[in-house]
Amino acid sequence: MPQLRIALAQVNACVGDIAGNSSMVLDWTRRAVESGAHLVAFPETVIAGYPVEDLALRKSFAAANRAEVESLAKRLREAGCGDALVIVGHLDRDDEGVRNSASLLHNGQVVATYDKHHLPNYGVFDEARYFAPGFDLPIARLHGLDVGVVICEDIWQNGGPVAALGEVGVDLVVCVNSSPYERAKDDVRTPLVAGRAAEAGAPMAYVNMVGGQDELVFDGDSMVVAADGEVLARAPQFTEHLLVLDLDLPAGGHTSTTVPEQPGRIQRPAFDVNRIVLQADPLPDREPQPAPPVAEPLSDEAEVWAALVTGLRDYVQKNGFKSVAFGFSGGIDSAVCAALSADALGADALHGVSMPSRYSSDHSRSDAAELARRLGCHFEEQPIADMVDVFVRQLELTGLAEENVQARCRGITLMALSNQHGHLVLAPGNKTELAVGYSTIYGDAVGGFAPIKDVPKTLVWKLAKWRNAEAEKRGEVPPIPENSISKAPSAELRPDQVDTDSLPPYEILDVILDGYVEGDRSYADLIAEGFDADLVERVIQLVDRAEYKRRQYPPGTKITFKAFGRDRRLPLTNRWREARP
Amino acid sequence: MPQLRIALAQVNACVGDIAGNSSMVLDWTRRAVESGAHLVAFPETVIAGYPVEDLALRKSFAAANRAEVESLAKRLREAGCGDALVIVGHLDRDDEGVRNSASLLHNGQVVATYDKHHLPNYGVFDEARYFAPGFDLPIARLHGLDVGVVICEDIWQNGGPVAALGEVGVDLVVCVNSSPYERAKDDVRTPLVAGRAAEAGAPMAYVNMVGGQDELVFDGDSMVVAADGEVLARAPQFTEHLLVLDLDLPAGGHTSTTVPEQPGRIQRPAFDVNRIVLQADPLPDREPQPAPPVAEPLSDEAEVWAALVTGLRDYVQKNGFKSVAFGFSGGIDSAVCAALSADALGADALHGVSMPSRYSSDHSRSDAAELARRLGCHFEEQPIADMVDVFVRQLELTGLAEENVQARCRGITLMALSNQHGHLVLAPGNKTELAVGYSTIYGDAVGGFAPIKDVPKTLVWKLAKWRNAEAEKRGEVPPIPENSISKAPSAELRPDQVDTDSLPPYEILDVILDGYVEGDRSYADLIAEGFDADLVERVIQLVDRAEYKRRQYPPGTKITFKAFGRDRRLPLTNRWREARP
Repeated sequence: MPQLRIALAQVNACVGDIAGNSSMVLDWTRRAVESGAHLVAFPETVIAGYPVEDLALRKSFAAANRAEVESLAKRLREAGCGDALVIVGHLDRDDEGVRNSASLLHNGQVVATYDKHHLPNYGVFDEARYFAPGFDLPIARLHGLDVGVVICEDIWQNGGPVAALGEVGVDLVVCVNSSPYERAKDDVRTPLVAGRAAEAGAPMAYVNMVGGQDELVFDGDSMVVAADGEVLARAPQFTEHLLVLDLDLPAGGHTSTTVPEQPGRIQRPAFDVNRIVLQADPLPDREPQPAPPVAEPLSDEAEVWAALVTGLRDYVQKNGFKSVAFGFSGGIDSAVCAALSADALGADALHGVSMPSRYSSDHSRSDAAELARRLGCHFEEQPIADMVDVFVRQLELTGLAEENVQARCRGITLMALSNQHGHLVLAPGNKTELAVGYSTIYGDAVGGFAPIKDVPKTLVWKLAKWRNAEAEKRGEVPPIPENSISKAPSAELRPDQVDTDSLPPYEILDVILDGYVEGDRSYADLIAEGFDADLVERVIQLVDRAEYKRRQYPPGTKITFKAFGRDRRLPLTNRWREARP
Repeated sequence: MPQLRIALAQVNACVGDIAGNSSMVLDWTRRAVESGAHLVAFPETVIAGYPVEDLALRKSFAAANRAEVESLAKRLREAGCGDALVIVGHLDRDDEGVRNSASLLHNGQVVATYDKHHLPNYGVFDEARYFAPGFDLPIARLHGLDVGVVICEDIWQNGGPVAALGEVGVDLVVCVNSSPYERAKDDVRTPLVAGRAAEAGAPMAYVNMVGGQDELVFDGDSMVVAADGEVLARAPQFTEHLLVLDLDLPAGGHTSTTVPEQPGRIQRPAFDVNRIVLQADPLPDREPQPAPPVAEPLSDEAEVWAALVTGLRDYVQKNGFKSVAFGFSGGIDSAVCAALSADALGADALHGVSMPSRYSSDHSRSDAAELARRLGCHFEEQPIADMVDVFVRQLELTGLAEENVQARCRGITLMALSNQHGHLVLAPGNKTELAVGYSTIYGDAVGGFAPIKDVPKTLVWKLAKWRNAEAEKRGEVPPIPENSISKAPSAELRPDQVDTDSLPPYEILDVILDGYVEGDRSYADLIAEGFDADLVERVIQLVDRAEYKRRQYPPGTKITFKAFGRDRRLPLTNRWREARP
């Protein structure tokens, strides 16, 4: 049977770095060709990075993408990679608008370009804003095998180009993706890829981006799945990887170039099937090399931790920062952020600042110092009493105004240290606080990035315990002081304050928030599920009123579909209240 | 010829206030019916408010909209308005998704519902995210006249439902809108409405929302335009208004219910034409009442000023604030914001705070006091020297870090006064500063709303002069001190600092920014237009690097298509640099 060695390049692109991304494609293709690959596939819009947001609307940006791809094809040939079929995602532009495209490069030429058919426009996706849909179906015959290409969302919609490829006949479908991570997404992704492979009647080679970009993080998880659903190969998550696999396929010698019409309210557009012959004849038979091991998906905590580390690392490094600084309060949130920072950037890049006020407990100072000691990071103490005193006296502040001034003097202190020494300030708030608005705007919300913005408080604890246990397994010092995990959370902005003065216990709060925010359940739904009516009322009011604070919060790595980020757009002026039955 | 008296209710809805918006519809319908109207039309999604953003995704919200409309129909009949045809915009939900709908209420019933066909998904619009498109074309026969309905974007796209209504035949098209204001938008809007009226072969009654909602402001500008392009009636901008007009129309007795098919790549969906007879027979002839005067569009400055006043007023009031506070620096930006605030909310709702530092000039303090004197607003002085000293000494700050601490101590002071006294803090930054990042995050960028966020610096001066001249025309004291207009702008964060130390002269800067930001012109385009290459390079670098600051800035009234707001989504991590030829 005809054979093909394919390579899926699970790489980390940076938005806007067209020259850098293109060089990376060249380097990885060289490696793949050295491994004997005949086909090398890169992720969706690898040349532009993903998502480019309104950069897509700059004509010069799409034009620069296209020019780079033409030039890359030539450089690939010059580098001795002309025989391989290289599939690269990029932006393109024609009379109908901007396209999310994947070009097939071969022998110094762009031999075909596929434009994404289905443009996702939900969650974090705004592709209907940026792109015009494609209708073409290029199919390239490579060493006697017919290879079709689709892009990401094309496999998440029924009746799309994969079905059409199945109808006209192909031997392999390559799906290029920039598919953002969500917790346990692989539980959906693998069966989906298997289903489309079955629909195409051919294996699907699925290559995904890896790395962080603003609030998104890509987990890779590239794979090859046979038409019968067998996972033939899988790359590890959250790391760059070249997945090389020998395929041995029954070549169909497909020649059809028309897709049968199908009924529907809107007639399906006529796909333009374009068959290109690169190498008509199969390769001589040879012994396939053994398939690489199929990477096991990570456990829930390991996966989330890796996502948070990756998102933080890439946000800091891609933005050119060398170090981060934030307040070490002695509490669990800053402790987890510190452990994440050390894992992402190394302890020497981490500057902890303890900023005790008159209301700070002794343990908050000692736990902060202990955290720094365990991590081996930089640490300084900057008491805020003198600063706070001037504001409180001069402006005659009381109550909430006095509480907030403390948080804001800390914010100013961190920003001043950032301006003076160049650190990126991190905001260590968690998703639960953000949901109910339990933070001080311009205070603890200060910073350029919020590593655990999408992590509910109960998961913060779970991650802390998991990370400590991992350290113990490896015979290392657990990074997070036990007392930071076990003590009652407190903002320490007035004497003897604890979070439960203002909020329900986190174990209950997180369950209600999960129902209201993630599940979009109504007041009536939640009551019907057995929650206390007053409690639900209180939580909903807190959530509905905190929109402004959430919007002003720094970006942070998204690990759920309903993260509080740029994809959630609630009105600021909003009088909607759920009906109370 | 058959006659009809129509009333266009140009009202100010609030997002989420379903009950309040519905009561408003009832009140205004009663007034319209008292004026003898047979048809009363309200703006797009008047029941929900516009735009509802992700509220649209809450099932209970769309369901509550529909329930309210059903109940409203009954209440209208009970109120003696059952004979009138009332057209109200609202959200709806069915198996295919959420709809942007307009229902026809008559005699206690919802007799038909039109779902918006064209869903705008550019600029501030995200309707492809929220809504499923409609295909129905209800046409109601009212007193012998056939009335079709369309919604907003439906008239901004060619080949849409208006063309279809023209093909099957109608006597009047009602277009309900929530069409946001943009500077000089009416220059486009009136010819557009006229063109669609010609296409329909019938007059178009265009009713638009008025008032502010977050960053959007609606100018109203409701009108009736005849098929020959004559503007028969027009409501004044930026004010609630009931526009009542007698129409005398040649009734066609149209009966066609099929729209001819048209060629195209994607076959046009079959519109479902649904003719409903409410009152088959024309009204007895009577003498029409004289048409109301056709409102003249405002001058450019008057229109922008009214937009800014409306946007600010509604943001403050709809969010339940009674007063605003911000720093009076003696400069032009805070002076214009003060004049806007006094016009929007009254001088008694305005609290000016002068916050001199050691670098503040004498004129900055005297100009601030003079501004307050002219406006008759509240005014206090809070020197920041003591606060700044503690930070600078304790943290050993120099240079930019020392400059920023001053701005941030002002920010904390304003937020503390807000927490203590309940004022909404305004951020008086202008669009030019935002474009180039000439502001201090958590400093002068502090606040809940930024009134002149979308106003370039040169326009700020122009508005100041215009507002003063208007006052003089009316024999009032010009609100803005002459010295604030004429002196060189300065941030006063170090000795003898002026803006031109860091920035090109505003007259040149604003022209380059207009080209790069509004015009999306490339580096090469701008050089070709004759700008100095180094200057363009410097401006582009400033703009490209300021994205994070822009994102963290408070919302502000949008007056251009390319405002720096939620509709502009540039990546934070972004290495794109325009090619330098």
